[in-house]
Amino acid sequence: MSSNTFGKLLSVTTFGESHGPAIGCVVDGCPPGLALDAAAFRADLERRATGKSRHTSQRREADDVEILSGVYEGVTTGTPIALLIRNTDARSKDYGNILDTFRPGHADYTYWQKYGVRDPRGGGRSSARETTMRVAAGVIAKKWLAERHGVTVHGHVAQIGEIVPRGFDASVVETNPFFWPHAEQVPELESYMDALRKSGDSVGAKVTVLADGVPAGWGEPIYGKLDGELAAAMMSINAVKGVEIGDGFAAVAQRGTQHRDEMTVAGFLSNHAGGILGGIASGQPVVVSMAFKPTSSILVPGRSIDRAGEPTEVVTKGRHDPCVGIRAVPIAEAMMALVLMDQALRHRAQCGDVGVVPPRIPGTFEG
Amino acid sequence: MSSNTFGKLLSVTTFGESHGPAIGCVVDGCPPGLALDAAAFRADLERRATGKSRHTSQRREADDVEILSGVYEGVTTGTPIALLIRNTDARSKDYGNILDTFRPGHADYTYWQKYGVRDPRGGGRSSARETTMRVAAGVIAKKWLAERHGVTVHGHVAQIGEIVPRGFDASVVETNPFFWPHAEQVPELESYMDALRKSGDSVGAKVTVLADGVPAGWGEPIYGKLDGELAAAMMSINAVKGVEIGDGFAAVAQRGTQHRDEMTVAGFLSNHAGGILGGIASGQPVVVSMAFKPTSSILVPGRSIDRAGEPTEVVTKGRHDPCVGIRAVPIAEAMMALVLMDQALRHRAQCGDVGVVPPRIPGTFEG
Amino acid sequence: MSSNTFGKLLSVTTFGESHGPAIGCVVDGCPPGLALDAAAFRADLERRATGKSRHTSQRREADDVEILSGVYEGVTTGTPIALLIRNTDARSKDYGNILDTFRPGHADYTYWQKYGVRDPRGGGRSSARETTMRVAAGVIAKKWLAERHGVTVHGHVAQIGEIVPRGFDASVVETNPFFWPHAEQVPELESYMDALRKSGDSVGAKVTVLADGVPAGWGEPIYGKLDGELAAAMMSINAVKGVEIGDGFAAVAQRGTQHRDEMTVAGFLSNHAGGILGGIASGQPVVVSMAFKPTSSILVPGRSIDRAGEPTEVVTKGRHDPCVGIRAVPIAEAMMALVLMDQALRHRAQCGDVGVVPPRIPGTFEG
Amino acid sequence: MSSNTFGKLLSVTTFGESHGPAIGCVVDGCPPGLALDAAAFRADLERRATGKSRHTSQRREADDVEILSGVYEGVTTGTPIALLIRNTDARSKDYGNILDTFRPGHADYTYWQKYGVRDPRGGGRSSARETTMRVAAGVIAKKWLAERHGVTVHGHVAQIGEIVPRGFDASVVETNPFFWPHAEQVPELESYMDALRKSGDSVGAKVTVLADGVPAGWGEPIYGKLDGELAAAMMSINAVKGVEIGDGFAAVAQRGTQHRDEMTVAGFLSNHAGGILGGIASGQPVVVSMAFKPTSSILVPGRSIDRAGEPTEVVTKGRHDPCVGIRAVPIAEAMMALVLMDQALRHRAQCGDVGVVPPRIPGTFEG
Repeated sequence: MSSNTFGKLLSVTTFGESHGPAIGCVVDGCPPGLALDAAAFRADLERRATGKSRHTSQRREADDVEILSGVYEGVTTGTPIALLIRNTDARSKDYGNILDTFRPGHADYTYWQKYGVRDPRGGGRSSARETTMRVAAGVIAKKWLAERHGVTVHGHVAQIGEIVPRGFDASVVETNPFFWPHAEQVPELESYMDALRKSGDSVGAKVTVLADGVPAGWGEPIYGKLDGELAAAMMSINAVKGVEIGDGFAAVAQRGTQHRDEMTVAGFLSNHAGGILGGIASGQPVVVSMAFKPTSSILVPGRSIDRAGEPTEVVTKGRHDPCVGIRAVPIAEAMMALVLMDQALRHRAQCGDVGVVPPRIPGTFEG
Repeated sequence: MSSNTFGKLLSVTTFGESHGPAIGCVVDGCPPGLALDAAAFRADLERRATGKSRHTSQRREADDVEILSGVYEGVTTGTPIALLIRNTDARSKDYGNILDTFRPGHADYTYWQKYGVRDPRGGGRSSARETTMRVAAGVIAKKWLAERHGVTVHGHVAQIGEIVPRGFDASVVETNPFFWPHAEQVPELESYMDALRKSGDSVGAKVTVLADGVPAGWGEPIYGKLDGELAAAMMSINAVKGVEIGDGFAAVAQRGTQHRDEMTVAGFLSNHAGGILGGIASGQPVVVSMAFKPTSSILVPGRSIDRAGEPTEVVTKGRHDPCVGIRAVPIAEAMMALVLMDQALRHRAQCGDVGVVPPRIPGTFEG
Repeated sequence: MSSNTFGKLLSVTTFGESHGPAIGCVVDGCPPGLALDAAAFRADLERRATGKSRHTSQRREADDVEILSGVYEGVTTGTPIALLIRNTDARSKDYGNILDTFRPGHADYTYWQKYGVRDPRGGGRSSARETTMRVAAGVIAKKWLAERHGVTVHGHVAQIGEIVPRGFDASVVETNPFFWPHAEQVPELESYMDALRKSGDSVGAKVTVLADGVPAGWGEPIYGKLDGELAAAMMSINAVKGVEIGDGFAAVAQRGTQHRDEMTVAGFLSNHAGGILGGIASGQPVVVSMAFKPTSSILVPGRSIDRAGEPTEVVTKGRHDPCVGIRAVPIAEAMMALVLMDQALRHRAQCGDVGVVPPRIPGTFEG
Repeated sequence: MSSNTFGKLLSVTTFGESHGPAIGCVVDGCPPGLALDAAAFRADLERRATGKSRHTSQRREADDVEILSGVYEGVTTGTPIALLIRNTDARSKDYGNILDTFRPGHADYTYWQKYGVRDPRGGGRSSARETTMRVAAGVIAKKWLAERHGVTVHGHVAQIGEIVPRGFDASVVETNPFFWPHAEQVPELESYMDALRKSGDSVGAKVTVLADGVPAGWGEPIYGKLDGELAAAMMSINAVKGVEIGDGFAAVAQRGTQHRDEMTVAGFLSNHAGGILGGIASGQPVVVSMAFKPTSSILVPGRSIDRAGEPTEVVTKGRHDPCVGIRAVPIAEAMMALVLMDQALRHRAQCGDVGVVPPRIPGTFEG
């Protein structure tokens, strides 16, 4: 019942504090025979990395993954894959002022209330540093999904503060520091973020992740629903306050005639459902969006209390993103991939001899 | 790994199809010594019941719960509590037209693709009939939370289509068929729903559930977060397409100075976080909102395909709500209660000897 | 984490007290497409039934299983299969004397110590009545194993008191009331049991179960070992005090040269291991034996205490077997089948694309 | 559903291969506030260590545990505790001859059949090297049990080959290399083992572990029984082929009058049950025994096949114990401690407000 373990058949257990000796994870349940080496983790860890641009936190670590087990001669063996990253750039002195203070918007107070003891250095276990291992584990899931099933997962930022994309071009998402799908807006975003940083404040963001190629039938009914597990996965990412599948909250004001995705032999006529019906994939792209709250660690002073119960004022001086949602794109992709791989294995377990069921219509409608 | 089981220490396993002989559940992990009898289930089952008013589906069943086990002389014994409801008003002929057709917006196609076989009567397992047992199980959780911890859970409808409450009065929620918090709007809603029904169409809704009295410290970090589990619980309810904790998606456009809930010795100054920080309850009210899509079963014909892969047209003639979100209020309350009771037991397991940790500030600020 | 649920991918949740309204179970995870009807349960339930002969308890119930869900038109649908048996012959007055007394060798005292409340009628939840549902669930597993994989499971009694079989003939096991593999000894056993019953005492037994046809590769390493899960399954049966795989405790006095099963291209040269190496099936017959303690409910008075903490004397007058191990044969077979089916599904999940790995030698050596 | 994870509320996930870079584990669910440092692991790891005497395997490693997380300023914080040991003395060349050969009695063939790929160096994941982390995790459980509940766990060797103790003196168990409870027999055992080693053969052993101070009420009924989980825990240790609770297989030939433990206000009159009734602790010492098979890696050649399916002969030249059961004492203690701590937390979760239930009789009878 470990609360540090994610997934049922593909289980990821993470450990480690922000400023402890190391962070790591154990990935259990990966099928044997998948090619894997330490270099595979580099790209996504860099996408997530602090220090990527001046718009994200300035912590700079190599984040080199060491594979401790589960791989022999470059191939997974079916035994647990342990991954380790040493914490080398943990400047604890930056955090001196939070040892005895509960930062508003952070988990300092709630961890303290739960455990009666906490590792305050850099937020300890509650730091987003933990998500590094989600990204690492997600690399394995992405690789397996792509190689075994042709499933790909890709995310982008869909809103920063009040700014929304004025167009969508998937090809530009990876070419700017905001994972933004409209190239023309990038200078505007840079100015926006610079002004935000100068003001010492922060802002929220919306991130959308899509999975292409998910076969109809993946997902479990009732309490193991694909959308239910995606919701849990995404809500477990630091700073997420909302999750939508497909049209999400827009569905509240929709009519049934508008929302239901009609079906033809050539495919679905729309994808309001976000690729999931009754908790099971329909064969359409799976679409999930998340709301990230504005970074709580900001330079503007805020009222709080200290461990003695006395009123105090908090100013965070450490390295922090003014918009944590941006770096969350690869994290959200990783969670999507982990959920999908887990569901794929579960589907194989129960329905492994069902095969492809006719009639199967295409996921997307080519009018 | 049962996908029909919910919860870790308080486990609820449900079974049954919409038009099968019976539906039921097994509630495992309830502490001994809780007073319980069959009458306890009546109120919430009626709140959820079909046939409550002309604005909800016309299926009329007694929904009398039989307690099959786990209770002796009116008190829980610590052994599994099995609950059973016979299906007595299952008019299968209403559903004749869906035997060979995949209804758009329903799980017909995805169940078929997953299993290669399905019980089509009334939607079979994918019917919202299953949620009856969630409500029944939730009654046990509500009772335990209230009696042991003084925690109460209550929901209301926060939006129907484009209509939002023009005021909030908790005392009127249970006095109208829409669980609506503003009495003056009820006639307007009645007209709105009547018009909707005449048009043969349906509409979405937003539901909000609050829990009062949740002590600071309940909830688990990382992958067992209170908000993560609430998200999974709520997203697993039929027709839910989005989940928000506290401000939810509104946080995207907020600034850090605006969102973070500052703390004083007299309590928090706001509750944008919805009572959860780092996955752990802060002592403030826990607030969750859900987006319900418009009912997919509508009288307006829609394009689809049949089992032979041929194009067809679907018109649903059975009994259906034009707005499924309304009846979902007690379901969402039940899921909230089940999550909280499970987390309470988990907190007791790991932190049972931690006790109340000073400084503990009040959940709500009394300026 | 339900303690009333068994299995990971094939999950069986049982409920019900000996003298409550009903007992039942929910079998979750069974693949779709398996033919199943209520009649399928009859044979094994009769093999287990009380009242089978004068050598077992005299409780006589129809034990007719009702299928409440998960089956449509005679075929499993992949949704949870709920099974129900009403308790019709629960003569609670027989047990009047145990309401306030803790019977030695029973769970009365420990349930009381754990929960502070208990249903004393017929032993409540701790009664072997619960194993009826194991047998019912096991029928599904046996059927799936046989039809999908050609795996069969069969048990026999290998010792009663100090009497051991003087020969082994599988064909006679089902022809006598002792599941005894040597027909000539049956009259001797009948006299032995009659004398035992007259003396008011009881005796222990050893039961052995074999599975034929289990493919090499089923089973999980480390904490999900096939032998580990068989041990848990068997030890969870009422009255079991020991479990052996293959040679079991005889291995203590063996030499390595003697115990290790040498391999040839024609197959293994022996099966001391009981078909399991490193927790994974070797392709040989899987062999498990269990020690059943003598029935604790006997006519000979025994010292005990009552709920007031006063000394008392206990004589059990109800209907009880003088040797509970005999009727346990179908129960142990059921547990073996449930473990194997669960492992088969797990193997399919992780290694579903591994296929048959050469060189694969025959399970049994044909010299 | 990780098969490399043990325990429900106290979860231990182990990873690592015998000759990979490292072995390690993640202990999740340990309550906060337990004092812990790296030195705490030393004693039990030495008790288990290879190279302890000439009677056990000659591998010599420091086995220094590094605590990677979950401990802050010498105290557990409630977050996962990751432990790491680097493999420094892995002489892979010793194992060159098993790269392409399946050793009889080992998991080589079954891992190969399951996964189609394996790490053959030193047995890879199937090596008893993995049990090092069980011992390390067990240290945490032993510490918590002793400090919070006064529960102690201690094991000894109860048989080697055909040799059984001629007396029992707990105080000598730790003073000889055989964990033998009768000092006079130690010289005899030394001669016995020397002769065995010279012959190139190996022998089995029986190990018994007791837990003192376990309160009545710990343990779960039905599928989470204390004895069931002990059976799984012990059977999961490499080379174990049988598990007994209390009298175990001796109960087969016992009468009910003899086996049932009568109760008086001064305590139980005997402990044939091994401290467990109905899966729940009775307050008496919990007693478990295990049968260890003789070491499969021996110098005497044995027939086998190679990966090409050709017949071959196997002689193991590496460092191996002639009697693996001896070193298993601390491993079995660790598994006992892990099961008990897990059950203690589960009991607290469900029955945390039950308290001590009268009448509670002493665990042991003082005549």
